[in-house]
Amino acid sequence: MKPATARLGDSVASVLTPALVIDLDAMARNIARMAEFARTRGLRLRPHAKTHKSAAIASLQIAAGAVGICVQKLSEAEALADASVGDIFISNEVIDSQKLARVAVLAGRIRLAIAVDSLLGIDRLAAAVRAAGTQIDVFVEIDVGQGRCGVAAPAVGALAQRVVAHAGGLRFAGLQAYHGGAQHLRDSGMRAAAIAHAVSQVRAAEASITSAGIACPLVTGAGTGSFTFEAASGIYGELQPGSYVFMDRDYAANELPADAPRFEHALFIKSQVISRGLAHAVVDAGHKSHAIDSGLPQVWGRALEFINGGDEHGILRGPPEALPELGDTVWLVPGHCDPTVNLHAAFVALRGGLTNGVVEAIWPVDARGCLV
Amino acid sequence: MKPATARLGDSVASVLTPALVIDLDAMARNIARMAEFARTRGLRLRPHAKTHKSAAIASLQIAAGAVGICVQKLSEAEALADASVGDIFISNEVIDSQKLARVAVLAGRIRLAIAVDSLLGIDRLAAAVRAAGTQIDVFVEIDVGQGRCGVAAPAVGALAQRVVAHAGGLRFAGLQAYHGGAQHLRDSGMRAAAIAHAVSQVRAAEASITSAGIACPLVTGAGTGSFTFEAASGIYGELQPGSYVFMDRDYAANELPADAPRFEHALFIKSQVISRGLAHAVVDAGHKSHAIDSGLPQVWGRALEFINGGDEHGILRGPPEALPELGDTVWLVPGHCDPTVNLHAAFVALRGGLTNGVVEAIWPVDARGCLV
Repeated sequence: MKPATARLGDSVASVLTPALVIDLDAMARNIARMAEFARTRGLRLRPHAKTHKSAAIASLQIAAGAVGICVQKLSEAEALADASVGDIFISNEVIDSQKLARVAVLAGRIRLAIAVDSLLGIDRLAAAVRAAGTQIDVFVEIDVGQGRCGVAAPAVGALAQRVVAHAGGLRFAGLQAYHGGAQHLRDSGMRAAAIAHAVSQVRAAEASITSAGIACPLVTGAGTGSFTFEAASGIYGELQPGSYVFMDRDYAANELPADAPRFEHALFIKSQVISRGLAHAVVDAGHKSHAIDSGLPQVWGRALEFINGGDEHGILRGPPEALPELGDTVWLVPGHCDPTVNLHAAFVALRGGLTNGVVEAIWPVDARGCLV
Repeated sequence: MKPATARLGDSVASVLTPALVIDLDAMARNIARMAEFARTRGLRLRPHAKTHKSAAIASLQIAAGAVGICVQKLSEAEALADASVGDIFISNEVIDSQKLARVAVLAGRIRLAIAVDSLLGIDRLAAAVRAAGTQIDVFVEIDVGQGRCGVAAPAVGALAQRVVAHAGGLRFAGLQAYHGGAQHLRDSGMRAAAIAHAVSQVRAAEASITSAGIACPLVTGAGTGSFTFEAASGIYGELQPGSYVFMDRDYAANELPADAPRFEHALFIKSQVISRGLAHAVVDAGHKSHAIDSGLPQVWGRALEFINGGDEHGILRGPPEALPELGDTVWLVPGHCDPTVNLHAAFVALRGGLTNGVVEAIWPVDARGCLV
């Protein structure tokens, strides 16, 4: 049994470090802004829970109007379904038959959808749901520019036909069309162009489906870096942004169009200075407390550089008068929120800001480490 | 309750992916080789458990002759003490008084040591153990070249004096002198030179202690990349290597002196191809299953390049005839074992090799996510 890093009602000062802290006020504004954006455009919003991995936060998003959530893995879906989320899209491929049997069972408990990009995957999925006697929504994934999963547009029709051939167990739900590679192009014109390419591929895929005599019920996709472009396309019916709920250093570095909604940093690492040299300070947060795949954290509110000090340490450099003292608190904004959350057992949810806030909730990271 | 990824007695083929897999035969050879190295030189071996975070593996190391283990964090020490490890050195600074109170309590349960590098840290630690009525071994940390924690050699004497001034609660145990920055210098001559510098600093620190009228009982330090040099110095009495037990891609890239012991890869990620393009394959293991702070994983036994595909995916490229098919198993050697282990709830421990092995044990990663 690991002792908690914080207790309900405690002041922020007593939260042990390093801790994964949510600014609840900022997060509420982020959730409301994205919900308002989708609502005013008549689009479905299905936020990606790969960011927060939390049933509590999924519930807040759904209460604000989201139709459900996305996840990337079967075991994430199971963990969030266990925590009462009732509408989940696994926006990724599953090919193992043991896992597909679990997918099929889960489809009997909640409204479940999944992505496919191969005939083998479709046939195995169909066999699994037939064996379980359940039904599942199936999106065919198209590669709209990332070069990862998904098929090319002309191949979509044949996959849709195969899904339809398994009617009864499989319900053809439309196209999964997410362009991960577009999200962090810094210039908004470049992101717009990447999504224009994605949209052209989606149109070609729709044509491939239509000429197979099948209607395409929905196109789903988009991320925090690009959703305004998919929303304006007229062809996407559902948006899947995830990171907007927390924002991270990497997304905050994107240049935004003037009319795009702004999101605030709502996720922080609270750290403490544990060693102090004449020209540097060392905090107790390294890349075991924050992911560095998208760059090092930003030192929040201080003109200091964060230097990678390994798994457990961060080295701070800057003007001597700006260096914090032994025992001081230093707040960090993670480079990438999704894998940072995955490093922690729980969120410490703070009401009232980082300086004088109080711990209002401690939420488990329900789908932490759900890899299968 | 998350379903397990494997069951005891299962064949390796049925282990769900991605999974953190130990080759028990290779690990046993690694443990024996390092134990033999230390024993024949009359040195104490205290392996660093920041690598494996596992009481089961610590027990194997101790059974092979290790005097105890090192950890980096208080909560790691608590987790491993709860799992019956009885001799632990927290080779890092703790400055928070709430945490120091827990350190002091833990010192009443097991043989515990800790590093210090400030008068404030020493005084707070002394107050905590006084309040708890316990005793703790204290190593003064010296910065031997990494520029992170630890003080310069001339400052060591004053810190040792302060530790001795708190005799009763604090027992001055010697010097913590680890050079993290030396471990991955590829050329063994460069690593030898870096440790020669460390040794010169240790000698100066010992002089500083001696001139304060205090004896230095022990110098402890060294890592998998450098331990042969500390061992040959005549001044280090204890070695702290961690990664040798698993080895990773980064350590395997070090050029070794002819007479240095060789260690084998014993830690792997089992992954599966979930999507296949004409010129690439996609596996279900991304940087949520393996840390990438020290580079991407190596594709084991296949002439393929691993390209970062984000949190959940790896993209494999190579000659078309070498690309694996949908559903195939692909084994990965992580770039850095310590933070890779931290991403997983459990080890799947395999006897009999990666091809035909059987699951002999499933060990929890006891100190996973122990950040405090």
